Amino acid sequence: MVRLLDQSRLPEQVEFLDCRDYRAVADAIRELKVRGAPAIGVTAAFGVALGAQAVSATEFPSFAKELMPICDHLAATRPTAVNLFWAIDRMKKALASLSAQPVPAVKAALLAEAHAIFAEDIALCKAMGKHGAELITTGQTVLTHCNAGALATAGYGTALGVIRAAWEQGKKIQVIADETRPVLQGARLTAWELMQDKIPVTLITDNMAGALMQQGKIQLCVVGADRIAANGDVANKIGTYSVAVLARAHGIPFYVAAPYSTIDLKTKTGADIPIEQRNPLEVTTIHGSHPVAPAGVAVYNPAFDVTPAELITSIITERGVFKPGELAGRFAS
Amino acid sequence: MVRLLDQSRLPEQVEFLDCRDYRAVADAIRELKVRGAPAIGVTAAFGVALGAQAVSATEFPSFAKELMPICDHLAATRPTAVNLFWAIDRMKKALASLSAQPVPAVKAALLAEAHAIFAEDIALCKAMGKHGAELITTGQTVLTHCNAGALATAGYGTALGVIRAAWEQGKKIQVIADETRPVLQGARLTAWELMQDKIPVTLITDNMAGALMQQGKIQLCVVGADRIAANGDVANKIGTYSVAVLARAHGIPFYVAAPYSTIDLKTKTGADIPIEQRNPLEVTTIHGSHPVAPAGVAVYNPAFDVTPAELITSIITERGVFKPGELAGRFAS
Repeated sequence: MVRLLDQSRLPEQVEFLDCRDYRAVADAIRELKVRGAPAIGVTAAFGVALGAQAVSATEFPSFAKELMPICDHLAATRPTAVNLFWAIDRMKKALASLSAQPVPAVKAALLAEAHAIFAEDIALCKAMGKHGAELITTGQTVLTHCNAGALATAGYGTALGVIRAAWEQGKKIQVIADETRPVLQGARLTAWELMQDKIPVTLITDNMAGALMQQGKIQLCVVGADRIAANGDVANKIGTYSVAVLARAHGIPFYVAAPYSTIDLKTKTGADIPIEQRNPLEVTTIHGSHPVAPAGVAVYNPAFDVTPAELITSIITERGVFKPGELAGRFAS
Repeated sequence: MVRLLDQSRLPEQVEFLDCRDYRAVADAIRELKVRGAPAIGVTAAFGVALGAQAVSATEFPSFAKELMPICDHLAATRPTAVNLFWAIDRMKKALASLSAQPVPAVKAALLAEAHAIFAEDIALCKAMGKHGAELITTGQTVLTHCNAGALATAGYGTALGVIRAAWEQGKKIQVIADETRPVLQGARLTAWELMQDKIPVTLITDNMAGALMQQGKIQLCVVGADRIAANGDVANKIGTYSVAVLARAHGIPFYVAAPYSTIDLKTKTGADIPIEQRNPLEVTTIHGSHPVAPAGVAVYNPAFDVTPAELITSIITERGVFKPGELAGRFAS
């Protein structure tokens, strides 16, 4: 069983979702009950491990063959965050290395691999936090968009990990959280996480960020990423691109925090990143039930946008802080 | 009695609000049951006329004296839209010109003045539409923010008047409507108005405008205004400034449509325009009841922002299309 905090119900309800098979794990990813690129990757790894437990084959070749459609099913949930494919690939590589083992040992090893991905993700976030915190000075106000926090990772967060690390170093900082329509991850998750940690946070609607920058109230921006192309272009939650353009217009540094599993050197530029289009009901209703627009209105609902490398000051990784153009050299496998 | 369409309930409910005294009119303005700078002005004029009917004084000097606190009460509802103060001043000027008349005739003349402001507002919108439509070419997609439509005026609209006029000329245009958080005037009112007129409209969340511009899907922007300073700086719904910065970054023309009553030559620059801060519940809930953020979170909720003149391509008025810097010369009284 994989137990997930149901993020679609936060902050009003703190409920856990028990996934008893890999299909339930896939549904949870598709329905945003778990979201955030690193968290999706970790969850998918546990999905593969959970799927593996239920495979009845007792010989490795048929076991491996039966596991493939399970991997494919999990990979088909969401198209943009590359951590999903990275985690499933890593589970497949682990599987390939276990061909000499009896099937029960393979199943145990796959579960151990998922646990390793989980533990590693927290360690990556802590390392990103350490590097990124050096970019923040006491007294500064940081804008963040969407949720790149503990809830988006195995724990601690990428963008919020940087903010947490600065706060833990005793820097007196403030956070401005974009509410992040349509799914409101900023209002529901980022504000909630920071309030739990008693880090000062002020919630704004997405369209207020420009006015705050104009008034000199924001000193830097830090966001997460769903996929980083080889040239340093970054796909992230819809609205990230607007924040980056506004930051550039006001001379404000714009940072992206992401682990190596988000960097996809096989994707040359942002133009090659598939952008998920989601259900119009996310825009026309709140929580799928409360209407905020006329019935039947046409809607455009891309879940992500692409920020070109030239608008990104630096990318904060577990290995250090790099210019977008340096990534390919630093992370070549 | 003043009958208003209750815009806070649109589009789910089409309900009319009957205001039986000037205090009810003031409440309706304060609570956004009527909103949009020109509509606020027209409504306030009727509020003055309604208040005048109930004044018991039978001699002009005491009648005029009793009318002043009524004007002040109506003027104290909202600080940013200058049309409110303009309309009340116009009613006061009408009053001053009537000092030789018996009080019943003064009351009738004040009501006639409010009706004149109403009729004039529609004519101004039609004239703006005619001038502005020349800026739109068939096949173009126009982005608008908030609602500067029939609902924001006595009828026809300022920004939407320009769009309507282009459509009525047979130009095949499309409209992208920003939903305009927190009060969602774009989703609730602009999308609804355009759907009523069968003008093609697609609804987006505010943070999608940048991505659409990046993809070349928007050819021009047109918005309304709540107050235009002498130097051409424009106060309008929060988020307008971000749209203007994004438009400039993408080389897209950014137009403001507004009648002379919005141009406030006594306000030198945008820095002198008071910006209304509204209730945090507008951000943390939908419609005041449905929570979308953690209880007790700090919120910043400015209702307007200021777009500097240098980001505005032209201002569309009833007298023609002018550069922001030309306004003071053209509209000097």
